[in-house]
Amino acid sequence: MNILPDDQEEALLHVPKYFRIHQDLLSNIKSNKWAPGDPIPSETELCAIYQVSRGTIRRALDELHRQGLIVRSPGRPTTVNTPKIPLLASGFRTDIAKKGMRPSTQVLTIGPSKAPLDIAQMLDIAHGSPILVIQRVISADEIPIIIEYAHVARAADTVTAHEVQTTSLLDLIPAKCHVYLARAVESYEPILLTRDHARLLHCRSGELGIKDQAVLYDREGQPLYVSTAVIRGDKARIVTETSFQVHP
Amino acid sequence: MNILPDDQEEALLHVPKYFRIHQDLLSNIKSNKWAPGDPIPSETELCAIYQVSRGTIRRALDELHRQGLIVRSPGRPTTVNTPKIPLLASGFRTDIAKKGMRPSTQVLTIGPSKAPLDIAQMLDIAHGSPILVIQRVISADEIPIIIEYAHVARAADTVTAHEVQTTSLLDLIPAKCHVYLARAVESYEPILLTRDHARLLHCRSGELGIKDQAVLYDREGQPLYVSTAVIRGDKARIVTETSFQVHP
Repeated sequence: MNILPDDQEEALLHVPKYFRIHQDLLSNIKSNKWAPGDPIPSETELCAIYQVSRGTIRRALDELHRQGLIVRSPGRPTTVNTPKIPLLASGFRTDIAKKGMRPSTQVLTIGPSKAPLDIAQMLDIAHGSPILVIQRVISADEIPIIIEYAHVARAADTVTAHEVQTTSLLDLIPAKCHVYLARAVESYEPILLTRDHARLLHCRSGELGIKDQAVLYDREGQPLYVSTAVIRGDKARIVTETSFQVHP
Repeated sequence: MNILPDDQEEALLHVPKYFRIHQDLLSNIKSNKWAPGDPIPSETELCAIYQVSRGTIRRALDELHRQGLIVRSPGRPTTVNTPKIPLLASGFRTDIAKKGMRPSTQVLTIGPSKAPLDIAQMLDIAHGSPILVIQRVISADEIPIIIEYAHVARAADTVTAHEVQTTSLLDLIPAKCHVYLARAVESYEPILLTRDHARLLHCRSGELGIKDQAVLYDREGQPLYVSTAVIRGDKARIVTETSFQVHP
């Protein structure tokens, strides 16, 4: 690897003006000089501070906005966002408590239904087969973060709203079906939140979200249930940890 | 769990009209009656087929679009999308080949740089420290899917564009730094693709994407490099597999 002299290196890197400003604003946020909830200077003020055009300031702010670090609301000053909650992919519903936040669950639906086509395929049952459907909203410190739909393939014993409110589905559903969980295959896709999502999550439709769909299998390799979670993209990010095989 | 009589169950479920149409269109796609690339009937034709309003048809189509199952282009017929590539979270760069597609890598940048603030924090080094930066675009069957930036903390031996084109960074970087990888912590966030992303990924800006950022640690627990991948949301989804602890 060639290390170039400093001036050549700078020329090679072509660091654009907006990026330097972005880095400076970022350091104000990361160093907590601007704390979560604080208003940041207006575009006009930032133009004066950095002596650049409004377009350059907007590009730096766009980048911060895309990173979820600032909140823009029409007619109100732009503020520093609260950091996104890092949700552990497996069992993130119980993970909220570990982060020192108060989790709460609102059960919206619990009862029998018929398997829609895509769910039936994932559960390896016929389209229209009887299933149990649970729909709930999970909040962290009273802020709704996740809408979760669980489609359970088996005739489960009585499941009560109280149990869904207080127990992780990862524990509850296998116990009710008298099986053990062996494996989960989980899929993440970016989505735009619909009006229905926005209503339940107390946010605006069209905002970014994550669709997290997991198929949970028992020890016999049979699909037990499908969990489909819609997660607010401005409030949470998904985190996974991988260990690599130890080399000799 | 109470199983309600059929009519009560139907009443309870309130299956909306658009959802029944969505399920019907979905079955045409899932059964391959409508194959990837095929045009689907126009909104006007669908209104006539299902005898419903344009609003109802649009809602069903919106849902298919959100699921990434159809492609809408102004002035052209709506077509069935090619299925999203399920990319395994760990080592998805090599995963493309396992899916029977031809992976290819275009190296855009490779050389020394200075650690920006956020990267420096993740690598546990001082802001502005010398690092190695690699930027590349990964394609599957000639379609660009992923932009990846790697920020390497250590003074690596010579890394060539040819090596980056032909070797997984998961193998290449530890080998060059003479260490073994022990652990990765990976974070997923939904984003809107910028103009720069869109130019490199041959798609439109403002489309949905996933930002996948991994910090790779060596056996001593030191951060070795940060991989920041921007992935087209319309072409790929992230898949993880989890095994649960075996119960007694």
